[in-house]
Amino acid sequence: MNKQNPSSDALALHARYRGKVQLAPKVPVRSLEDFAIWYTPGVAEPCLAIHADPAQVWELTNRGNSIAIVSDGTRVLGLGDIGPEAALPVMEGKALIFKLLGGVDAVPLVLDATAPDTFEVTVKALAPSFGGINLEDIAQPRCFGLLERLRAELAIPVWHDDQQGTATVVLAAVHNALRIVGKSLPQVKIAMLGMGAANVANYRLLKAAGADPAAVVACDVNGALHRGRGDLEALAHVAPQWDICRESNAEGITGGAAEAIRGADVLIAFSRPGPGVIRPEWIVGMARDAIVIAGANPVPEIWPPEAHAAGARIVGTGRSDFPNQVNNALAFPGIFRGVLDVRARAISDEMAIAAALELARCAELRGLREVHLLPTLDETEVPPRLAVATGIAAQKAGLAQRPGTPEELRARAERAIHEAQKL
Amino acid sequence: MNKQNPSSDALALHARYRGKVQLAPKVPVRSLEDFAIWYTPGVAEPCLAIHADPAQVWELTNRGNSIAIVSDGTRVLGLGDIGPEAALPVMEGKALIFKLLGGVDAVPLVLDATAPDTFEVTVKALAPSFGGINLEDIAQPRCFGLLERLRAELAIPVWHDDQQGTATVVLAAVHNALRIVGKSLPQVKIAMLGMGAANVANYRLLKAAGADPAAVVACDVNGALHRGRGDLEALAHVAPQWDICRESNAEGITGGAAEAIRGADVLIAFSRPGPGVIRPEWIVGMARDAIVIAGANPVPEIWPPEAHAAGARIVGTGRSDFPNQVNNALAFPGIFRGVLDVRARAISDEMAIAAALELARCAELRGLREVHLLPTLDETEVPPRLAVATGIAAQKAGLAQRPGTPEELRARAERAIHEAQKL
Repeated sequence: MNKQNPSSDALALHARYRGKVQLAPKVPVRSLEDFAIWYTPGVAEPCLAIHADPAQVWELTNRGNSIAIVSDGTRVLGLGDIGPEAALPVMEGKALIFKLLGGVDAVPLVLDATAPDTFEVTVKALAPSFGGINLEDIAQPRCFGLLERLRAELAIPVWHDDQQGTATVVLAAVHNALRIVGKSLPQVKIAMLGMGAANVANYRLLKAAGADPAAVVACDVNGALHRGRGDLEALAHVAPQWDICRESNAEGITGGAAEAIRGADVLIAFSRPGPGVIRPEWIVGMARDAIVIAGANPVPEIWPPEAHAAGARIVGTGRSDFPNQVNNALAFPGIFRGVLDVRARAISDEMAIAAALELARCAELRGLREVHLLPTLDETEVPPRLAVATGIAAQKAGLAQRPGTPEELRARAERAIHEAQKL
Repeated sequence: MNKQNPSSDALALHARYRGKVQLAPKVPVRSLEDFAIWYTPGVAEPCLAIHADPAQVWELTNRGNSIAIVSDGTRVLGLGDIGPEAALPVMEGKALIFKLLGGVDAVPLVLDATAPDTFEVTVKALAPSFGGINLEDIAQPRCFGLLERLRAELAIPVWHDDQQGTATVVLAAVHNALRIVGKSLPQVKIAMLGMGAANVANYRLLKAAGADPAAVVACDVNGALHRGRGDLEALAHVAPQWDICRESNAEGITGGAAEAIRGADVLIAFSRPGPGVIRPEWIVGMARDAIVIAGANPVPEIWPPEAHAAGARIVGTGRSDFPNQVNNALAFPGIFRGVLDVRARAISDEMAIAAALELARCAELRGLREVHLLPTLDETEVPPRLAVATGIAAQKAGLAQRPGTPEELRARAERAIHEAQKL
């Protein structure tokens, strides 16, 4: 296998195995007589028990360890609207990671949901099957209202990983970067480039974690966000960017990326694949000890060496072949592990922030440095620690429906992950 | 474990394992670097290949081995409308059987589908994720129109096991019973008791296989079906029983079960749990060498010894503790195995009949006798033989989208089942 370019083998390997996840028994079946326990007539007993007490579904079925990964394929990776079938390999890959790193049974579901209400109707109908919903690769602005309505209407957690997952890992990276340079979140000036699902969520979670919205200058393809952006005001009924226009950018900066980034302590870009999207001279104009997250995939908005040469002290990207990979897979397996283990009815901002801060602390396992803001995927400590932090935060928020001490949550998470890795 | 009464252990065992199926990797993951193949960046290659040629989804994902088991929980076993959560243990049990006997990855999905169109909208939206849909435990008359519309609108097979699965196994049993007694399907008089989803489907498939509708007398809770049944005519827009009133019962028999059964060669009951639903004196009045299928679960409409004492020569029930168990699990694993292996775009009556006749032939493996009409679940020859018969029938019907000789289909089926049983 060519480790320099895994893509060159990916097609052949996908064809060889025809898919990445499968169903497997969770119970021993020694002989066909066991079907009399697991199917008729024995199965009537758990059915009746759940009918009498609906909470028994969590004790007598796999619902408590199952989530759905749901996508309509309208915004897949950097590939755009490629449709549900073409999105399926991504969802299967995510299911593989959910199981191996988090012990979570995540069912890949790609939807033909072109009709307006179909996505929402479908996810609501599916809810009794699952302990949580992970939305994935859905175009904006649709993803915003969809997430908001599903969170409001369902009694199980709904998470849009491209929003909340990204924001959790970015918050962890920014938190650690600021520690290194000795600045604090409420005091820094933050520039954001590209205002799609990722940066809208980054904005919201950074604000919830203490960043000053007035000191954020966001910039989309039409320039800086400010109170004069009538194009975004016109979309206020479906898209949240207008809210950002109203509460950020207290200085009323207009113009483009150059103006938005000037003087910023932190630049967070989730715009379009580079290089060349972020110009070195913009970074030259940032504050001392500048922090740059260039999140576009597969090629960041600026290559890290170029950003450093322009004066950035700390640089993160989405890539594993540079330091500081901002990778959602650091967060979602552990967060959902914790959510399922306390049977949380939602994932609040407080829970995401608790997971982000724990992820930040995990970086210390190998020593916090400019080139080591975040742990890497092979650090097996990370998912159980995030699970415990998320579960405890759910308890504090009154969202946990199953009790457990931190030690018990740790044991639950480790057992689930251990069982998964034996498969 | 108490083998006499597996139900007594079922609740405790369901609680111990918390579910019966799980997700598992289908590919080797030796190190986290493999995620660069199965997830980003490598996964973009299969995504792009499928976007360029949608048929590649069958080669590059697990779609071609995946089906959904979908229920709204409105008619579960003999338990009635217990709702989606309480139906989940049944769907998980069915998924376990699908995998272990057929090598099929069947995802249990229970729907909150009380709103009128929700079930249909949801299944249509889910179609890109799956190679087939198995509907399960849906109340009639809803299940009839739902099946019909989904079959018409989707390009993947849609099967309602309570209809077509039951009918396939009943046809096999009746076929073999008639061989034993030396009668032929087009010539016999058939009485049917209980006209829900099972017997409506039995009627249709027996007719498609050569039974004479004019010589069928069906009977529901309000008596024999005939052209004077205004109650059923009033439901003709949603329920198919009126069609049966119009084309069956050429003699115009009225009255109840006693009149319907008098003189019949075959009695097929799928009504309500007995005993005592079929009275011995009715069987006394049947033709010589009477055949009785008493399909209600968990207790048949009449106990087999009582039916024999009243003159029945051959008796089948739904139970494994009497001879001639009419059990859908004999059919669905092999049929879906074959359907997936030739990528059939539908399951036609001809395919169900081919599977039924092959199932009937399988009974000869241990010798066809009055007390051995059908094979049993532990006969491992059955699923691959049904898979081949179904696949070849799909080819003949022009419904197969992937070629294969009988030998190739046999090898595909055996390999899939063998892989599943290693898990």
